[in-house]
Amino acid sequence: MNLNVFLMNAGHHEAAWRHPGTEPHNITDIRYFQRLAQIAEQAKFDSLFLADGLAVSKNIKHGAFIGLEPFTLLAALASVTERIGLIGTVSTTYNEPFHVARKFASLDHISKGRAGWNIVTSGGEAEARNFSKDDHLEHSKRYERASEFVQVATKLWDSWEDDAIVIDRSSGSYADDTKVHEIDHAGDSFKVSGPLNVSRSPQGYPVLVQAGSSEDGKEFAARYAEAIFTAQQTLAEAQAFYSDVKSRLVRYGRSPEQLKILPGICAVIGQTESEAIEKERELNELTVPAYGLQQLSTMLKVDLYTYPLDGPLPELPGVDQINGNKSRYQLVADLAQRENLTIRQLIHRLAGGRGHRTFAGTAVQVADQLEEWFTSGGSDGFNVMPPYLPGGLEEFAQQVVPELQRRGLFRTEYTGTTLREHFGLSRPANQFASAALSR
Amino acid sequence: MNLNVFLMNAGHHEAAWRHPGTEPHNITDIRYFQRLAQIAEQAKFDSLFLADGLAVSKNIKHGAFIGLEPFTLLAALASVTERIGLIGTVSTTYNEPFHVARKFASLDHISKGRAGWNIVTSGGEAEARNFSKDDHLEHSKRYERASEFVQVATKLWDSWEDDAIVIDRSSGSYADDTKVHEIDHAGDSFKVSGPLNVSRSPQGYPVLVQAGSSEDGKEFAARYAEAIFTAQQTLAEAQAFYSDVKSRLVRYGRSPEQLKILPGICAVIGQTESEAIEKERELNELTVPAYGLQQLSTMLKVDLYTYPLDGPLPELPGVDQINGNKSRYQLVADLAQRENLTIRQLIHRLAGGRGHRTFAGTAVQVADQLEEWFTSGGSDGFNVMPPYLPGGLEEFAQQVVPELQRRGLFRTEYTGTTLREHFGLSRPANQFASAALSR
Repeated sequence: MNLNVFLMNAGHHEAAWRHPGTEPHNITDIRYFQRLAQIAEQAKFDSLFLADGLAVSKNIKHGAFIGLEPFTLLAALASVTERIGLIGTVSTTYNEPFHVARKFASLDHISKGRAGWNIVTSGGEAEARNFSKDDHLEHSKRYERASEFVQVATKLWDSWEDDAIVIDRSSGSYADDTKVHEIDHAGDSFKVSGPLNVSRSPQGYPVLVQAGSSEDGKEFAARYAEAIFTAQQTLAEAQAFYSDVKSRLVRYGRSPEQLKILPGICAVIGQTESEAIEKERELNELTVPAYGLQQLSTMLKVDLYTYPLDGPLPELPGVDQINGNKSRYQLVADLAQRENLTIRQLIHRLAGGRGHRTFAGTAVQVADQLEEWFTSGGSDGFNVMPPYLPGGLEEFAQQVVPELQRRGLFRTEYTGTTLREHFGLSRPANQFASAALSR
Repeated sequence: MNLNVFLMNAGHHEAAWRHPGTEPHNITDIRYFQRLAQIAEQAKFDSLFLADGLAVSKNIKHGAFIGLEPFTLLAALASVTERIGLIGTVSTTYNEPFHVARKFASLDHISKGRAGWNIVTSGGEAEARNFSKDDHLEHSKRYERASEFVQVATKLWDSWEDDAIVIDRSSGSYADDTKVHEIDHAGDSFKVSGPLNVSRSPQGYPVLVQAGSSEDGKEFAARYAEAIFTAQQTLAEAQAFYSDVKSRLVRYGRSPEQLKILPGICAVIGQTESEAIEKERELNELTVPAYGLQQLSTMLKVDLYTYPLDGPLPELPGVDQINGNKSRYQLVADLAQRENLTIRQLIHRLAGGRGHRTFAGTAVQVADQLEEWFTSGGSDGFNVMPPYLPGGLEEFAQQVVPELQRRGLFRTEYTGTTLREHFGLSRPANQFASAALSR
């Protein structure tokens, strides 16, 4: 079983910053993240992961998703950890492939092979307005650009063969220029000559991760991704998603083991079940309705402020109207309908994991849930989303991880040193190896 | 006196990688840079600095300026140092202000106020071809874009007032939204709404550094820069440059102390003068003529391969033909003429510091030179460029620094914790403080 920890400021619950055990003042203090990384590494997590966006949400009165930038934060963590993978979110819509390829190669060198890239296409119109664009690119166009972006990046990572650098002091030969390649890429979105200005990194490429679960997202994942973070509310949905995505791999000449599917789990852990449920209730009571309303209105693209909190959702726009996170829209719409939730109940259901699965119980009950999903075709592991930090991570690390280890489901020691080794993924071959010098 | 160390792979001398004491295999190993940073911090250097480019030079057979990307490298160094400033080169021509502002704010948080930005406009056509551009922007257009870029960045850094984050758990108030500002920038090159998605950093802004010495570059420095790295061959030239740049500050309502002028010095240090000269000669003999010829041909924009190495330079194009580093072109042309150098002699003169001043002597002689420039209006300090690493830095730290300390010219302990404090620069006021919420 692969376990990634998804670190989010004071925790994933939207009211985590109001919880007395959290440290919202410390989210720009690197020592806070160092502690979290070290807890996760001691528990032998495969990786830690940072989400990111390129704009501030409107409702900053009651909470804001702001903080340190992933490359700088992960590089700083690389210096104080030794084994845990470091996965950062970077958008293909508002970046240039040369910069992104360079930074991931650099992070992979610095961490000695522990870098991962969560490839996102950016969901929000506010982001466009920070990058001299009036409009956000349409959903399928974003994925077309993302596809070309990843192709350019892999060419750049391969532009130096592994043995291109010679360093023969006596002859004065620094590099074998037949093993350094211009890529001469010219496509619809990018024209990039190359080569990259850093040598090939320990993993060849960072581990490629994807978190979109729309039709475009699943197809993109099947083609490029080596791990997928996904939100699944029920085992049946998780199984359907799992077999759907895995079945797509063959079209790209890939086998099922080459893509790890990791649904999110936001677990509130108690010594007893009733203590866990009480903890979850206390967190939900700390939510500020105006904040949840704003989040939900943005997600569903409908103004909910004029509807009674204790009444049902109004009629929603169709998924074709959504140009942000299509799969999350569908999940939330289905959830509200299936469980017949009022707006307030829906806000509470989303407060923990924004659509990811939430669960309150003992460590044994949490382990039971993970084991069931893992052994019945629902997942290859999990994206662990502590509701509050550092406490929620400490509880998972100290109580759930040992239980999974006792059951033989999770490693007790790292056996590899790179993130690819943790995930059981092979190092990619170089597409230019033994090709003639292209310049 | 302010001392910055300019770290460059195996060292600044172009043949450093062939020197038996250097570690060219380790330039992508973070532990190598950690050692260098720690040597410099023990010697109480103000800062360390990394140059950067966005393309590989053509002649990779005999040396290449490649390596780790500055943000990731500096963030990794921030974790293992405590006081030394961390200055990274980032181009305004091939980046977006939102990304750059975010990363520097993040690096400044991570380092607790030690970030500096060497603002460059990029000099080479090869860089354009890595960013979907056919042509490199013309020199003055690059500076226009740089100026707007810096203005957008400062607005973004100010978009959160220092006390905007409230975190009142009981009332549910996370931020005071009257202290968070949309910037609504709309100019010739950029349209950026803001606010930035990270809070204002310890220094407010990173220390702004500039390294161009052309007319455009000097004017840009006078307006924005707080430190300037410059190449000056003689004291007379340094004095002229110093008084020229300092006299420009008043036009922007700034005082002379607000801009530190730091000429480069590439010193080969020996126990005796003759030992130092012999070390320099050995280094020069390790140069590969084809490499120096290619560098010089690019710098002067003339094909030198067809001219005899032991003859004079051919006629050069005028400086108006140069769309890269105009001031370096002028310096090299003047140097060749003044000293009546052959092509080979010029290559040797440039091998150490690419146009920066080189000097071979004992530690006392080096200190004499630095003292003379510093006390006679030539500089506020120096950009120390060790010809080979780590040895050249160790010799400077262990021999020259103590000599400067004995003379009362350089600190014996850090008195501040931020780079601004080391340089004696004030923290910038927030341009939006107490302004009404602009949204």
